[in-house]
Amino acid sequence: MQVTAESITDAALADRVRAARPSEVRKVFRAAQRPGMISFANGAPYLGALPFDALASSAARILAEAGPVALQYGASQGLPALREHIVSLMALEGITAGADEVVVTAGSQQALDLAARILVNPGDVIFAEAPSYAGGMAVFSGYEADLVHIPMDADGLVPEELENAIAAVRASGRTAKGLYTIPNFQNPGGVNLSVERRRRVGEICRANGLLIFEDNPYGLLGFDGTTLPAIQPDFPDITMYFGSFSKMIAPGLRLGWVLPPASLYTHFLNTSETTLLNPPVFNQMLLSSYLDDPAWEAKLDEYRSLYREKFQVLVETLEQVMPEGTRWNLPTGGFYLWVTVPDGIDTEALVHECIDRGVVYVPGTAFYTNGRGHNELRLSFCLPTLEQIRQGGAILGEVFTAAAAKGGRA
Amino acid sequence: MQVTAESITDAALADRVRAARPSEVRKVFRAAQRPGMISFANGAPYLGALPFDALASSAARILAEAGPVALQYGASQGLPALREHIVSLMALEGITAGADEVVVTAGSQQALDLAARILVNPGDVIFAEAPSYAGGMAVFSGYEADLVHIPMDADGLVPEELENAIAAVRASGRTAKGLYTIPNFQNPGGVNLSVERRRRVGEICRANGLLIFEDNPYGLLGFDGTTLPAIQPDFPDITMYFGSFSKMIAPGLRLGWVLPPASLYTHFLNTSETTLLNPPVFNQMLLSSYLDDPAWEAKLDEYRSLYREKFQVLVETLEQVMPEGTRWNLPTGGFYLWVTVPDGIDTEALVHECIDRGVVYVPGTAFYTNGRGHNELRLSFCLPTLEQIRQGGAILGEVFTAAAAKGGRA
Repeated sequence: MQVTAESITDAALADRVRAARPSEVRKVFRAAQRPGMISFANGAPYLGALPFDALASSAARILAEAGPVALQYGASQGLPALREHIVSLMALEGITAGADEVVVTAGSQQALDLAARILVNPGDVIFAEAPSYAGGMAVFSGYEADLVHIPMDADGLVPEELENAIAAVRASGRTAKGLYTIPNFQNPGGVNLSVERRRRVGEICRANGLLIFEDNPYGLLGFDGTTLPAIQPDFPDITMYFGSFSKMIAPGLRLGWVLPPASLYTHFLNTSETTLLNPPVFNQMLLSSYLDDPAWEAKLDEYRSLYREKFQVLVETLEQVMPEGTRWNLPTGGFYLWVTVPDGIDTEALVHECIDRGVVYVPGTAFYTNGRGHNELRLSFCLPTLEQIRQGGAILGEVFTAAAAKGGRA
Repeated sequence: MQVTAESITDAALADRVRAARPSEVRKVFRAAQRPGMISFANGAPYLGALPFDALASSAARILAEAGPVALQYGASQGLPALREHIVSLMALEGITAGADEVVVTAGSQQALDLAARILVNPGDVIFAEAPSYAGGMAVFSGYEADLVHIPMDADGLVPEELENAIAAVRASGRTAKGLYTIPNFQNPGGVNLSVERRRRVGEICRANGLLIFEDNPYGLLGFDGTTLPAIQPDFPDITMYFGSFSKMIAPGLRLGWVLPPASLYTHFLNTSETTLLNPPVFNQMLLSSYLDDPAWEAKLDEYRSLYREKFQVLVETLEQVMPEGTRWNLPTGGFYLWVTVPDGIDTEALVHECIDRGVVYVPGTAFYTNGRGHNELRLSFCLPTLEQIRQGGAILGEVFTAAAAKGGRA
């Protein structure tokens, strides 16, 4: 038998890779990297207001004074000093945890991946808001979970819909494994899960033996600084809480964390060690040093005001330029505006025209696993400048107005 | 039914986690982190000779001049400038590749994890040298591969043994998926796969439809700078080549890479994006800037000499203190000395006594999946100082000599 290289590599693929559906959205994010592109696509913070001179001094001091530690392997769990800061941050959301209960990860994306790897068997059902974070769903799908969407309203995911979905999954003989939720300034919906519903949703999960994957990168980014209590404190035994420094401070450091139930802690620690050995030490020291100075909180406040202003300018622009019948919600924080355009306008088709004209967004279809979202889109407003928001918004208006004039569904 | 939290989390575990055997070696590595411990355990470079002032200046300059890029999300593939350096490094081993064929990862550990995730189905057989890198085998085991060891001699893994093992696996009806090999200064054996055998081993793999996982963190760390040609150039269509900056430069940056077969490239890129989004940008810029200055090669030469001296002092010490019948190989580079003690001395049992006395190594059992290795141990000689090598070696001598006097197997 003649064995060719292609037959070897094709035959060798794991089932979990074969099962994965190729995602069109990667093309969009790659387009967003082109120079000069106005990007409403990236869920990226604006970094221009960071104190780069102070960070430069810190970085230089760390390398000069503690280089052999900063550039060496470190503890898989993460640096104690950084974990103490994480504990303080979580306390702002009502979470009581010790530094030894936290695992620092290479961004919260890695933490999500650990959770899916530790807990998901092929065919397990993970419930997620409709719509939900594409990158989170991709993690679960990557371990062959079936994602089932739960409708949201203005108060977040609807508890009765979750109950109905659990019952339907059970009736079909499948395993309802857990709920993946982004309770604050949800990605991409921009809504908050109301405080009353947090408890109700947790009770439904507990009563049905579901785990809760509480993904909270945006919780401290309310425009007015309002912080809602996390789900975790009432359900610590079934909740994995995921935190991130990427939206609050700087994604280029790739640092996040997970607070798992005590019964799963060792699995998280050991699995993180197997996949990464340890999170980057130098980055942890730099971040920890940044958090040592209380000035970082004033800086966060500055970003909140800036993001509110960008949000307002985006909404003002869209009001002037988008075709009649276009709707959006009014988030009170976070990064995202969720836009619904008139029926028949296909945001997935139009994104290429927009890219050609120098502006990019994420089509709504990226946030569903069931084919929905063709007349929806996500606009991230934190990264572009005010001028880019006005310019990019005007281009969106022209493209979508022209599409509407062609008759939409007609 | 009353559902308790523990019953939920226990029932929820994925099969791949249930299948994993708990590893005793984690305790050893945690002991190695205790202050004052003389560690022969960590496969860690000595960093004291790095140009920390120059690195500090670079880090400060990067943050001051390009902070908003360094601290932002970046390309999943890694920075082009760093990938160009990687291409140059690989050329030293005879590898011809373009920068667009490489994916930068958070250490080569993450790259190994990607490979296993993309390619391993439960029950697939991965062949590995006997003994082999514990952390590499843990990655494959973590996706429920069965590891099958291939004996080595002074020229590395024995091709005929690989052929026999493939035949036996096939006869048992299992899938022979690939060979995981560390051809240079092998971890933990310290041996090189001979140039003749590289081709022979590759031919066996191709003829039998096996993939090659070529893990090469140590290739440029020969004491005299001799660099052997990689396996990849003759078998680019079936080889995943893994490189790392952790042993050559600094593990605290967590940067490595993978060069996969062209047919698998998109899978590696997309899976890395799903698990990490992107490797840390700031770290890539700092490393790339370090590699821009040819002085780094002189620094590498300095390390080679230093490591040779440490190796020699370790061997001289062991010659004086270890009980009769103790044997070791004489590596020509890398990080590791592989030691065989007289039958009946159990290195796994004695490591705790050594830890109590302030010195730690890795018992041989960590490097096999089949229970072997009780009378073997790995000594890493790069991290400890010459004085620590003498002190720690003396303690090893006392503990092992006492154990031998008690009669070993008797």
